[in-house]
Amino acid sequence: MEQAIIEAKRALAIGEVPIGAIIVKDEVVIGQGYNQRESLQDPTAHAEIIAIKQAARTLGTWRLTGADLYVTLEPCPMCAGAIVNARLQQVVFGAYDLKAGAVSSLMNIVEDKRLNHCVQVMAGICEEACSQLLKDFFQDLRTRNIYNSER
Amino acid sequence: MEQAIIEAKRALAIGEVPIGAIIVKDEVVIGQGYNQRESLQDPTAHAEIIAIKQAARTLGTWRLTGADLYVTLEPCPMCAGAIVNARLQQVVFGAYDLKAGAVSSLMNIVEDKRLNHCVQVMAGICEEACSQLLKDFFQDLRTRNIYNSER
Repeated sequence: MEQAIIEAKRALAIGEVPIGAIIVKDEVVIGQGYNQRESLQDPTAHAEIIAIKQAARTLGTWRLTGADLYVTLEPCPMCAGAIVNARLQQVVFGAYDLKAGAVSSLMNIVEDKRLNHCVQVMAGICEEACSQLLKDFFQDLRTRNIYNSER
Repeated sequence: MEQAIIEAKRALAIGEVPIGAIIVKDEVVIGQGYNQRESLQDPTAHAEIIAIKQAARTLGTWRLTGADLYVTLEPCPMCAGAIVNARLQQVVFGAYDLKAGAVSSLMNIVEDKRLNHCVQVMAGICEEACSQLLKDFFQDLRTRNIYNSER
């Protein structure tokens, strides 16, 4: 999860909401990504999607069987669906997303037995560090907005 | 939907499961895509995701407000989530997907009021043509598998 946090800090460095992800198979990092929605102006450019696409390139197959995804924030429905589609083995997330989380908070797509693949979930790992990154980012954003609106 | 079917036939022509999508805004096609999961070995390369990424490039923004997506098969959870994330106005689909459909069949992600955006749904448009494409594809696949296993 520490490496996923490093990825999240990369997003922070370019002014993006700080969310990072890595994918590990056999103790080797095969994919990594950080949120780039604004920089790329791409609604699909979440950390998880970027990491999944990179892992598929690394392995040369869309089936990421036996690989685990670590992400600093609970995945949204799109990313949870991509995790199932990629046949990942496990998803480990840091902070809960009460507004859009689709692995635990609002729904649980990855463990839905009606789908053709189920993914194990480990929740709340390094939760404090992951959520603090987000809190600081939004606090800073609010401060700057107040500052700008006062000018 | 006819243009989405043309996209689906492009997938068929390269041996992919025939699913196609287009995105329309102000009566202009701003994105199109067809399933390329096997060709690209990318688990996210569904027709909808490719069309959404293209539409965002066309408009120069990730917010596809006021745009409608037409797709030959009911979107899976990943694509339904991407449709919400892209702030699309409406999703129109052809065939129902009873095994993975996330807009009507198994769940309804795009009209989930707990999420920060809701998308209108129009279901079963040109359903017969869309599902026939899929039936023919899988029938052909089975025939070839039997043929191959007999050799």
